[in-house]
Amino acid sequence: MATLIAPRDFSPIEDAENLKKACQGWGTDESAVISILGHRNLFQRRLIRSAYEEIYHEDLIAQLQSELTGHFEKAVCHWILDPADRDALLLNSELRKLAPNHRVIVEIACIRSPEDLLGVRRAYRFRYKQSLEEDIACHTTDTLRKILVALVSAYRYDGDEINEEMAESEARILHDEIHGNNPVHEETIRILSTRSKAQLNATFNHYKDIYKTSITKGLTGDSEYLPMLRTAIRCINDPKKYLAKVLWSVINTVGTDQEALSRVIIDSAEKDLKGIKEVFLRRNNVPLEEAVARDTTGDYKNFLLALLGSEEAS
Amino acid sequence: MATLIAPRDFSPIEDAENLKKACQGWGTDESAVISILGHRNLFQRRLIRSAYEEIYHEDLIAQLQSELTGHFEKAVCHWILDPADRDALLLNSELRKLAPNHRVIVEIACIRSPEDLLGVRRAYRFRYKQSLEEDIACHTTDTLRKILVALVSAYRYDGDEINEEMAESEARILHDEIHGNNPVHEETIRILSTRSKAQLNATFNHYKDIYKTSITKGLTGDSEYLPMLRTAIRCINDPKKYLAKVLWSVINTVGTDQEALSRVIIDSAEKDLKGIKEVFLRRNNVPLEEAVARDTTGDYKNFLLALLGSEEAS
Repeated sequence: MATLIAPRDFSPIEDAENLKKACQGWGTDESAVISILGHRNLFQRRLIRSAYEEIYHEDLIAQLQSELTGHFEKAVCHWILDPADRDALLLNSELRKLAPNHRVIVEIACIRSPEDLLGVRRAYRFRYKQSLEEDIACHTTDTLRKILVALVSAYRYDGDEINEEMAESEARILHDEIHGNNPVHEETIRILSTRSKAQLNATFNHYKDIYKTSITKGLTGDSEYLPMLRTAIRCINDPKKYLAKVLWSVINTVGTDQEALSRVIIDSAEKDLKGIKEVFLRRNNVPLEEAVARDTTGDYKNFLLALLGSEEAS
Repeated sequence: MATLIAPRDFSPIEDAENLKKACQGWGTDESAVISILGHRNLFQRRLIRSAYEEIYHEDLIAQLQSELTGHFEKAVCHWILDPADRDALLLNSELRKLAPNHRVIVEIACIRSPEDLLGVRRAYRFRYKQSLEEDIACHTTDTLRKILVALVSAYRYDGDEINEEMAESEARILHDEIHGNNPVHEETIRILSTRSKAQLNATFNHYKDIYKTSITKGLTGDSEYLPMLRTAIRCINDPKKYLAKVLWSVINTVGTDQEALSRVIIDSAEKDLKGIKEVFLRRNNVPLEEAVARDTTGDYKNFLLALLGSEEAS
């Protein structure tokens, strides 16, 4: 469930006017920005952006980019974007880095619904005039390239039907390939990138039953590929647990990876951030809001807490 | 341009009623079926099918399947289907054969627009409760599998911008891989399945400039893969020429491949069958209608001629 608290009734024109007011004069009224945008759902944010454009002939995002700074600015602007467009932006900015974090690609490819992933590819093509898979293929090689291109190109069936026999036989194929001497992993990549999530989870369960260990256990090594395979399996197997772990590791790293923190909270605030918060609390014995509040400061902190549905923020 | 001749004004209810009449009593009035359905565009056929369902609580396709026979029945029923759904059906029936004609997969993957190809994948998932690439991967192995899965998973950028420098460098990569000793063809498949069609055509032109021969020339061998690579390049390079060649070879084979004949004519009748006819005439010195009329008989012949916009048929 979502954590975002948005009012039923709202006026996009009033919101646009108040955002303009917050940006005028000396300094910006950041708390006004948070109290408006931190409490509007996707549909409402779209209307506010349109109203702003209509009234002031200016893009709200461009305006906020010039008024706000740092992680706060980035988070607010990402939050205003449509999710597919935001993902396209995240993927491209990752690919343009000297040392891209390929986990972001795996995360988006494996956690988004098949239809949403198509939306991301469409947004990417529209923004960057090339296909997402084209860009990934140019920036990577070997098995890493194969798994990333296959995962982002996937358009899985998303029904619940499962073929148990196939799940068992594919669990054996995965085991033989992962623990065999052939590093090519062709069948593994085929299975991971074409089967439905329900089918894959049945396969992972059969793996556990047959080999008495989780499939991700054996996945260590020096390659760049194996951690991505591991990430893909974890994202497909239990996205909430995976995202809770991302948040925990982000918060517990010296020099918190604010990009990852924003990414997960912004994307989940209207989806299942409540579920992620529950897993986070259960595993770490500390509420996510508390951990975030300890690790961030100022407007950025207040904005994230607003998205987390925290009272503190308002 | 399309060859189909459809009236501006029409009544879906009248058409539905006349189709019902054609199916009633002893025997079916095939010429009535042809004179109606052979002259209705996609939008009109959709409305007729809905009206038929509404009035008679029966699917028009199921009704015609029970009334008509042979290639005629199959052609009329395929014609009524939405293009994406028809492609999904064609792909699945090909994959279920003992000896599938993989060219059909390449043809659909490389000739349809990127957006239409997504529509085919969506229709496939809806019809068969599994993804197209999943099914292809199960039925194929090695390099053949790699190229087919990559081509159907493609969602190319479809703008006109070209990077000439990249085209030249990739022409060299293609040459080195195709004429080298490495049969893996990883870069070839990456380039063919991710670059935009405009970019690929620039690459093929550079290939010709540098090596003084067409890229398809060297592509012979015993594998199942090389003919598919050749087909993909031809479909991307000049779909009209490719389809005209398919029609010519179909018509000139003993025991004409009626499935291929129907497939090309039905799919192109509302797209660029006029262009294909021109290429056909230029290359073979015989009008396509004449060749089709010589090679088919009865209602099937009349139906194809109607789609070809031939006077004879009406």
